[in-house]
Amino acid sequence: MTLTIERNALQRRDEVLASKLRALISGPQTGFLMEAHNGLSARIVAEAGFKGIWASGLSISASLGVRDANEASWTQTLEVVEFMTDSTDLPVLLDGDTGYGNFNSVRRLVRKLCQRNVAGVCLEDKIFPKTNSFIGESQELADPDEFAGKIKAAKDSQLNDAFCIVARVEALIAGRGLTEALKRAEKYHAAGADAILIHSKKSDAAEILQFAEHWQDRGPLIIVPTMYYAVPTERFIDAKIAAIIWANHNLRASVASMRRVCETIYRERSLKDIENDLPRVKEIFDLVEQDELTQAEHRYLPRGNALDPVSTGALQ
Amino acid sequence: MTLTIERNALQRRDEVLASKLRALISGPQTGFLMEAHNGLSARIVAEAGFKGIWASGLSISASLGVRDANEASWTQTLEVVEFMTDSTDLPVLLDGDTGYGNFNSVRRLVRKLCQRNVAGVCLEDKIFPKTNSFIGESQELADPDEFAGKIKAAKDSQLNDAFCIVARVEALIAGRGLTEALKRAEKYHAAGADAILIHSKKSDAAEILQFAEHWQDRGPLIIVPTMYYAVPTERFIDAKIAAIIWANHNLRASVASMRRVCETIYRERSLKDIENDLPRVKEIFDLVEQDELTQAEHRYLPRGNALDPVSTGALQ
Amino acid sequence: MTLTIERNALQRRDEVLASKLRALISGPQTGFLMEAHNGLSARIVAEAGFKGIWASGLSISASLGVRDANEASWTQTLEVVEFMTDSTDLPVLLDGDTGYGNFNSVRRLVRKLCQRNVAGVCLEDKIFPKTNSFIGESQELADPDEFAGKIKAAKDSQLNDAFCIVARVEALIAGRGLTEALKRAEKYHAAGADAILIHSKKSDAAEILQFAEHWQDRGPLIIVPTMYYAVPTERFIDAKIAAIIWANHNLRASVASMRRVCETIYRERSLKDIENDLPRVKEIFDLVEQDELTQAEHRYLPRGNALDPVSTGALQ
Amino acid sequence: MTLTIERNALQRRDEVLASKLRALISGPQTGFLMEAHNGLSARIVAEAGFKGIWASGLSISASLGVRDANEASWTQTLEVVEFMTDSTDLPVLLDGDTGYGNFNSVRRLVRKLCQRNVAGVCLEDKIFPKTNSFIGESQELADPDEFAGKIKAAKDSQLNDAFCIVARVEALIAGRGLTEALKRAEKYHAAGADAILIHSKKSDAAEILQFAEHWQDRGPLIIVPTMYYAVPTERFIDAKIAAIIWANHNLRASVASMRRVCETIYRERSLKDIENDLPRVKEIFDLVEQDELTQAEHRYLPRGNALDPVSTGALQ
Repeated sequence: MTLTIERNALQRRDEVLASKLRALISGPQTGFLMEAHNGLSARIVAEAGFKGIWASGLSISASLGVRDANEASWTQTLEVVEFMTDSTDLPVLLDGDTGYGNFNSVRRLVRKLCQRNVAGVCLEDKIFPKTNSFIGESQELADPDEFAGKIKAAKDSQLNDAFCIVARVEALIAGRGLTEALKRAEKYHAAGADAILIHSKKSDAAEILQFAEHWQDRGPLIIVPTMYYAVPTERFIDAKIAAIIWANHNLRASVASMRRVCETIYRERSLKDIENDLPRVKEIFDLVEQDELTQAEHRYLPRGNALDPVSTGALQ
Repeated sequence: MTLTIERNALQRRDEVLASKLRALISGPQTGFLMEAHNGLSARIVAEAGFKGIWASGLSISASLGVRDANEASWTQTLEVVEFMTDSTDLPVLLDGDTGYGNFNSVRRLVRKLCQRNVAGVCLEDKIFPKTNSFIGESQELADPDEFAGKIKAAKDSQLNDAFCIVARVEALIAGRGLTEALKRAEKYHAAGADAILIHSKKSDAAEILQFAEHWQDRGPLIIVPTMYYAVPTERFIDAKIAAIIWANHNLRASVASMRRVCETIYRERSLKDIENDLPRVKEIFDLVEQDELTQAEHRYLPRGNALDPVSTGALQ
Repeated sequence: MTLTIERNALQRRDEVLASKLRALISGPQTGFLMEAHNGLSARIVAEAGFKGIWASGLSISASLGVRDANEASWTQTLEVVEFMTDSTDLPVLLDGDTGYGNFNSVRRLVRKLCQRNVAGVCLEDKIFPKTNSFIGESQELADPDEFAGKIKAAKDSQLNDAFCIVARVEALIAGRGLTEALKRAEKYHAAGADAILIHSKKSDAAEILQFAEHWQDRGPLIIVPTMYYAVPTERFIDAKIAAIIWANHNLRASVASMRRVCETIYRERSLKDIENDLPRVKEIFDLVEQDELTQAEHRYLPRGNALDPVSTGALQ
Repeated sequence: MTLTIERNALQRRDEVLASKLRALISGPQTGFLMEAHNGLSARIVAEAGFKGIWASGLSISASLGVRDANEASWTQTLEVVEFMTDSTDLPVLLDGDTGYGNFNSVRRLVRKLCQRNVAGVCLEDKIFPKTNSFIGESQELADPDEFAGKIKAAKDSQLNDAFCIVARVEALIAGRGLTEALKRAEKYHAAGADAILIHSKKSDAAEILQFAEHWQDRGPLIIVPTMYYAVPTERFIDAKIAAIIWANHNLRASVASMRRVCETIYRERSLKDIENDLPRVKEIFDLVEQDELTQAEHRYLPRGNALDPVSTGALQ
């Protein structure tokens, strides 16, 4: 975590993390990325055993209280992912929407992401400001050549060799069909994309599997089964999908539980019915590594200025 | 919410919200404030019916992934609360720790909070950078005269008359006893504090109730029953406590649920067992008022550029 | 300045400042706005007697070290103008480029500007990310209806009635001719623009004066004579130009002087040849109102904790 | 500059820059660092031939329009220096005041500075929030052991081996005498400081030279001759001063020139008397490498979407 990052004589943290992501989305086995939207959820994803984090645009926006329409500025989003990479040693793949502008916006973005130890960014071929893929029909797509230029610019800007540029094809979302989707994927792949994310909002996986079949493993394929959640994962493993993103479920889970706890406390005007269902405050301290700070106080503060470890009386 | 804020010919939004908070913490009935830590949780608190929000320092820090030790800068915290006040019409009382420095830091903070429509700030008589009240014993307290100067500076800096300065007395937390606590509360009250927050980490409410008795209603008293959660709320109402803060339960609820959903998805490698327990994506859109944007597209975009309302196929 | 802002029972600071700008750009006499790019230059503009500030996109970008191509995010720009409005009681008109996105980006921008006490924003009918008007030929223009929607959205979003939306017509810059320029100006005027900024990069003012003649005073006209600097100001006054912007001269002056001082110190390896040409350090303290802080220390710090006023020994 | 940063197979940018600073402040010859306060002034310092930049706390604060009293948050300062390191290949030594809090604040700061390619930080042994060294007499100093803990924490937190921690001794400023100054310097040196900055506000250099003599070259000494500017630099070279900081002269030069240009334009209501004294707009474009963007447009934009190089008509 943040405070125990090892300095590596041979490789730097951004490269180590990017290499981990690269292995996860292009290895022989299907990789899984779990959504997080802030430092805390990133820590929880790590705790559960996942090997990679999807920094979802929808989740980050919604947690800030705004819409998935680039209402937060790109530097505000950058700050969110920085708190995430400071909170875990898992690689973070940022949902970078359209890149927040043109090829030049993408160049700045990629450099800043590398500086913040983000492992990769996913860019989608739509128009800035973006509209969430599950809203409306026939969303406007980017000119494929202009978008390919963004991919190329992104690749030329990364500060370590392992950083991953994922090109997200929205042609199926926009109802433009398989041929258009494949044509675009091919162009982005040729421009240097390290992986293709093929997105669909159908409740079955037919068009995804069809795409995968025609793609013939020309490069790693990533999918996001939010709408076709009922399809067994084995189907995707068989189809040699490189990685699967569980895209927004931490956010949705937190909404459900916060609603529940708010309703209970509002109604009861008391904590006694919910206290035992919640993690203790000490568990929150543990999640953010409070002990490391207490130990550091003993190391860096003079005399007896450091406080004792978390007092058991108040917290157990 | 953000987009439907009415411009008021007589009063401005910051004053309206501060007046709401003032009524909540100094009215004839005990008020209740529920913790939130970002725009999303603020919206959920409003949805549940609460009348005020506690922007908890612990919760904001932890959600960012850092410790309750002023690891985030004061402007990073300011940005978090701005997203919160943009997300709801409930008044927000910021847990402002020690004020992030000296009296001059407090002056800047209070002005910036008023500009961001925050309704009040709670300042505690400890040393910057702060240590969470539940950690260690015998924490160092601020010089009471120096802290009273902060309170005075805060009052002189507020940009509307209704803004609330709450002085948090940490003498009981630091094991300094009732007399010291009362002496400090009196001094801060004299310096202009609109309310006193008396904090305790005992599991019973004896010292809180004792304090309230001796205080003799010289001004509004606020409490935070995180550790003495089992004490019936009626006891506090009888003791004429002005307001009660449920301080970190949204955060803790979200931790519990994110852990659960992460564990399930990690184990099952599938969404099918959890999909039905989670709010649909459409509910997330509703929380951040997606419909308002769709309607605005029809109002401001030329011709047929606006997308149709949320498509039912994908989301229902 | 920041620390002596009077709270006004009837009007709030954002409205006071917007009203000042409104008077300056729509009064019977030609108003003048001087460029500033940070808090310091804003203070210097005020000191010189000007009545309004142009927060230039080019100057702000260049002072940050980046290009006038939206390389800084809109919230980074927002932070710069906030330091400016905190530094002076002059109204600030922000050069808001294209509004940093679509109509919805403009809505958020305008609300945030009002909260930061910015008095108005100028939006130009080009494509995001913008290109500086003096670069290249035949720059692409925005669809005029789409841009009119932005103006309408801006007007609907301002938080006080006096806030000014200036529509900048780039048709002459793009070589699209007078008729196109007038047609666009008319459309933006109809959409609610409080003034039209008609821009030109010719070294004479023929097309500007022609535009003014045809415009027939339908609303306030603003000009930026950077390239036609040799044209006597009387010509514009006679043409009933409402306001003139001196757009980047503080920035350019500071570049010239910093180059000079760097060259001298680098060559001489000594300060003695330049010390007497520079303002003393005490003058810097005066510009940022150091004395106010010293006085405040006496007001808010206990006992003898405050420092004496600036010691003369070191600084005179 | 930003866009032409070479990726180095063996060393990363933060380490390359830190190594440059290390050589500059600990080499056999006296090094010189010139003040800058934003990306633009950083570029001008580089242009003049200097080998290192002093990111002055006073200058950065004043340029923002605030006081040298930690009125800007540490992350706001961090953003300023990030624009600086993005603007030049010179190493930047940040004037980090007191480290903005305690040892833990310093740990976060140092990590963030390394991520932003800052080459080193100077920490001073005063109390947060700081007071400028030239204000008042008898400023309070930090407990030397507590400050030594900060130095140790800083060293333990740097992300590359070359990053420089400079300990600034304020004992002479506070009138505490040579013995105290030497005792503190020794302690900070022992704690790991890479260099000692010994500060004085006397108009002669007697106490500085006396300190240097007693210090006996135990480690690099840095000085800031703002107040004793008339002392010939040879004196310091003879005394084996490792590096000299020209601390605020770009800022002061820019104030002088902006005042001049404002006065002229305000009085003349015309640009014609000053246009020829100022760098042309094209020179501003050159400073921020506009040409690189134009070339990149040809590389990354499809077909003929790129604009021609800067048009000569408007700018020459």
